[in-house]
Amino acid sequence: MENKYRILSTIKSPKDLKKLSDSETKELCEEIREKLIEVVSVNGGHLASNLGIVELTVALHKSFNCPKDSIVWDVGHQSYVHKMLTGRYDKIDTIRKKDGLAGFPKRSESEYDDFNAGHSSTSISAAYGIARAKQLKGDNSYTVAIIGDGSMTGGLAYEGLNNAGRFKKNFIVILNDNKMSISNNVGAIAMNLSHMRLKPTYLRVKRHTERILSHIPLVGNFFKKVLRRSKSKLKNLIYKNTLFDFLGYTYLGPIDGHDLDELSNALLVAKKNNTPVLVHVVTKKGKGYEPAETRPKEFHGIGKFDVDTGEPLSSKKGFSYIFGKQLCDMAKRDKKICAITAAMTLGTGLSEFSRNYKPRFFDVGIAEEHAVTFASGLASKGIIPFFAVYSTFLQRSFDQLIHDAAIQKLHIVLCVDRAGIVGDDGETHQGIFDVSMLNTIPDTTIFSPCYFDELRQSMNAAAYMCDSLVAVRYPRGGELYRPDNFEKSSINFDLFGEEKTKISIVTYGRLFSYACKAKEKLESEGISVNIIKLCRIKPIDCKAVKLASDCEMIFFFEESLVAGGIGESFGYELKKTGKSFFYKIHGIKDTFVRHETVEEALNELKLDDEGMIKVIKEYL
Amino acid sequence: MENKYRILSTIKSPKDLKKLSDSETKELCEEIREKLIEVVSVNGGHLASNLGIVELTVALHKSFNCPKDSIVWDVGHQSYVHKMLTGRYDKIDTIRKKDGLAGFPKRSESEYDDFNAGHSSTSISAAYGIARAKQLKGDNSYTVAIIGDGSMTGGLAYEGLNNAGRFKKNFIVILNDNKMSISNNVGAIAMNLSHMRLKPTYLRVKRHTERILSHIPLVGNFFKKVLRRSKSKLKNLIYKNTLFDFLGYTYLGPIDGHDLDELSNALLVAKKNNTPVLVHVVTKKGKGYEPAETRPKEFHGIGKFDVDTGEPLSSKKGFSYIFGKQLCDMAKRDKKICAITAAMTLGTGLSEFSRNYKPRFFDVGIAEEHAVTFASGLASKGIIPFFAVYSTFLQRSFDQLIHDAAIQKLHIVLCVDRAGIVGDDGETHQGIFDVSMLNTIPDTTIFSPCYFDELRQSMNAAAYMCDSLVAVRYPRGGELYRPDNFEKSSINFDLFGEEKTKISIVTYGRLFSYACKAKEKLESEGISVNIIKLCRIKPIDCKAVKLASDCEMIFFFEESLVAGGIGESFGYELKKTGKSFFYKIHGIKDTFVRHETVEEALNELKLDDEGMIKVIKEYL
Repeated sequence: MENKYRILSTIKSPKDLKKLSDSETKELCEEIREKLIEVVSVNGGHLASNLGIVELTVALHKSFNCPKDSIVWDVGHQSYVHKMLTGRYDKIDTIRKKDGLAGFPKRSESEYDDFNAGHSSTSISAAYGIARAKQLKGDNSYTVAIIGDGSMTGGLAYEGLNNAGRFKKNFIVILNDNKMSISNNVGAIAMNLSHMRLKPTYLRVKRHTERILSHIPLVGNFFKKVLRRSKSKLKNLIYKNTLFDFLGYTYLGPIDGHDLDELSNALLVAKKNNTPVLVHVVTKKGKGYEPAETRPKEFHGIGKFDVDTGEPLSSKKGFSYIFGKQLCDMAKRDKKICAITAAMTLGTGLSEFSRNYKPRFFDVGIAEEHAVTFASGLASKGIIPFFAVYSTFLQRSFDQLIHDAAIQKLHIVLCVDRAGIVGDDGETHQGIFDVSMLNTIPDTTIFSPCYFDELRQSMNAAAYMCDSLVAVRYPRGGELYRPDNFEKSSINFDLFGEEKTKISIVTYGRLFSYACKAKEKLESEGISVNIIKLCRIKPIDCKAVKLASDCEMIFFFEESLVAGGIGESFGYELKKTGKSFFYKIHGIKDTFVRHETVEEALNELKLDDEGMIKVIKEYL
Repeated sequence: MENKYRILSTIKSPKDLKKLSDSETKELCEEIREKLIEVVSVNGGHLASNLGIVELTVALHKSFNCPKDSIVWDVGHQSYVHKMLTGRYDKIDTIRKKDGLAGFPKRSESEYDDFNAGHSSTSISAAYGIARAKQLKGDNSYTVAIIGDGSMTGGLAYEGLNNAGRFKKNFIVILNDNKMSISNNVGAIAMNLSHMRLKPTYLRVKRHTERILSHIPLVGNFFKKVLRRSKSKLKNLIYKNTLFDFLGYTYLGPIDGHDLDELSNALLVAKKNNTPVLVHVVTKKGKGYEPAETRPKEFHGIGKFDVDTGEPLSSKKGFSYIFGKQLCDMAKRDKKICAITAAMTLGTGLSEFSRNYKPRFFDVGIAEEHAVTFASGLASKGIIPFFAVYSTFLQRSFDQLIHDAAIQKLHIVLCVDRAGIVGDDGETHQGIFDVSMLNTIPDTTIFSPCYFDELRQSMNAAAYMCDSLVAVRYPRGGELYRPDNFEKSSINFDLFGEEKTKISIVTYGRLFSYACKAKEKLESEGISVNIIKLCRIKPIDCKAVKLASDCEMIFFFEESLVAGGIGESFGYELKKTGKSFFYKIHGIKDTFVRHETVEEALNELKLDDEGMIKVIKEYL
């Protein structure tokens, strides 16, 4: 069989890249695209962003000497090409699989990965830290941050830009502008980048203006006078005409991100500059694969799909879909209901809401801090904002949740999607911190439904039965096993099974499904088990505590970190009853959870039915 | 006695302000200044910022109709003048005192306080939320955010600016530029604001340029051609020449913030604009009080002081001072040691370090997120960064601590100042979340020393005995009571007293001082007590757990929230011993702590010796 990847398969390190002719390099780019489509269609992952960044990655590794020079990828979902070019081509088929390559840069994986990522807007700060460390050590190599226009809407990117803006040493920021943050809701930066893209003559205008200013003697009298007076001022104004100029960067761009020559030239100029440089590179998300070019949002992060049609191989409706539907229903009946997303309209299930209730829909960009403070402002005037956000990204808002929402007792509903294990995105994306984080905030209510009807019920309770900060958290994907005899659940907690059994399993969220299976198996062995299923996990219902304390052995299962979790709080409430019983909390113990499927992770963590039975039997 | 505050005392609401003549208004400003100095010299508080904002506050309340129009104060420490003018003059002497006015805006205090604050950079997001809520309700009133140049370095401010930048409805941002963020370390924005301040002709330049562009026929041939071609481009460039223009704002300024007429005119122009406006107001921090004008940083937040000399009435050396000294000692011996502060050089005790180790000192502005990601970058290249930060502000970095530091197991030392109750700053500033927050992060080590020698010891251990994220937390102020027979403490934990007593008090941080007193009193009544004093609170030492479990009754005292705190984790470890004992956690139970002195708060929370005895006796 002919090797489809004739050139790509020979690239063992960036050095090999530098030996290629122009036409070979172009061919390489095509091979990379083909490989990307092949791998992602099978493994799932981030396709559109990687297709868009092929030439830029090749140009970077041709222009710089990694790993001596450092490249810091923002978010990092666009690092597949980088991985292929830095000695990991032979493992690229394992990406996002258990024991395979990670879907994001990882220092532990390769010396070419300078900094781990996963969340947005960190690259400039991290790269600046690397650059200053190098300076302290007398190392003159380059440090490059690559950041998308979406990530540029995050406040951390601005803090990084501002801090690095006065640094002089071989520091380059590449703005990979793939127009993905452009929508009416995302604010002024998106609009201005769009203006800048429409001005390909920007650099030329600048050069002209410089010439103009140096040719003042040529012009008429009136003009001469004015210009002479304000020469330096005008010059300054013209030089400080983008956000980036203002923040201390020499702006280069816009550069065609699919033109290898233009890219190489720009990087050459950038390397020679003695101020920090921002290179504005315009790329096309999904470039080279028609379905991804036309539907880039769907191909941002995607599951397995059919290469010919671009259609996903599975399309089960999950919690996000139900959330979106329910919020539309609620918004129809109640004009006070608004929705907020931090650049995750599709992912959080808000597409329909965004179309049908446009004036009440706010996409704030990748700005979770702002989302919560903005929601607090809305709530202070009687609006009921629903902020739909992935658990892992809500970590960004911890201070705003305390300082802007909770202290003022403002009524904000957090809809915490992807709560619990998320699977193949790995450590950076696991939703295992939100419970401890929200549990510690005074006056907060937390619901953790297991089924769709409970999600709807929780959202209603959150809107109309709570008057302070309230969170409804639900997992990635859809409903799991529901026993026939578990029909309707209550909003606080349910006892499933008899009272005063030998074993009581206390749990919440989707783990209830596994607990039910575990209960069935244990009972088939003659061990009596009940399940205290919490839906409201904060505040804890004292009746649930009482019921659990009537059992001999209590096992608390938690798809979250043990430290600061509900198990510890529940345990302390149990202790207060003064009764004697065995108590075991089984959750995630002071560790991060690597990338593998949700099922694999739950199995490894002993949080599925099989695991629960093992844990329980250890103490029987 | 003559009323020193002839006019001020007659101002019951902003309406009264509008009746004043120009000369009366000027006199009012002088009276306000006098009152500010009088009050803050007695109560302590924020002086320099309030002295700087007198005219601006007066002008705002003359130009707008509050509470119909909304004013959102960033940070809010500069709201004393606002409080005096909005019906609270008669209570201003109680500011920051128990049951008195808060030192920050509070919705529960007055309808003129539109949004609570305390932390920085929230005002634009909150104001934008208020403005959008008004729009949804058909309310056309104005919304104004007042933000300092320091707060403008925070990413949240940028996220807010970006989001509000395309909104058209009566939205005004006032940049109160008092030059307090200007230092070599604070980045490009500070530098650019400084340039802008030096260009008082900015508006005029703009007008000239416009005239130029409309007079193209007057100029010479070469020029004409170029300019014609690029007329619209050039115009665009000139209009988008500040950060604020770029972000969608009409820029007005710089305005002299102590000139009432200029302020009124600018606000009038701003009100008539149909885009969001940014008014750049230049003020002098400490204006009108010489000691504060010359030493504005010292008079930012200050304790009681002598009005004549400006000297503070107490100057005890506290933990911050010891921290700063120790870090200098360590930096002298180890070139890898760096220090980072988020605009708190003085407050965190880093002044000496900043002078002596300039290349290794980084003031990042009010940018706690960046601080941690930047530190992670430094650490990834072998530097040992110490980030000194107030507990309450560290909340801003929760995601960066997880995502950038802990997941990569990078060795960063957090020096968490003002941990625990901080007193008169109130709810927004209490350091009662850091324990739960850090406790939940995997692989993190936390030290909570009680005495200066323990702080030094903890810092050494943090630098040289840990290799991942590590925090050393210490309270505001200095050492408290130390029993003669408690000489040297160990880095993990100490047993103070006999083993197997009736009562064991388990505690950490400064509460140990109170616990010692409680022990003495209880023992004088014949009750045997020991104290398990934790210095390393995570991971918990199993030997400490064993020792506690040997006692009949265990009382865990915690100057932190109970939910997610160490008491719950310790309690679960105790439970695992399988022994039978009474266990009580006494800490802060799901509530915020209002402003009063530290002593008053600890007494109210039953966390001083008296309180501990009460708690213990309840169960005896």
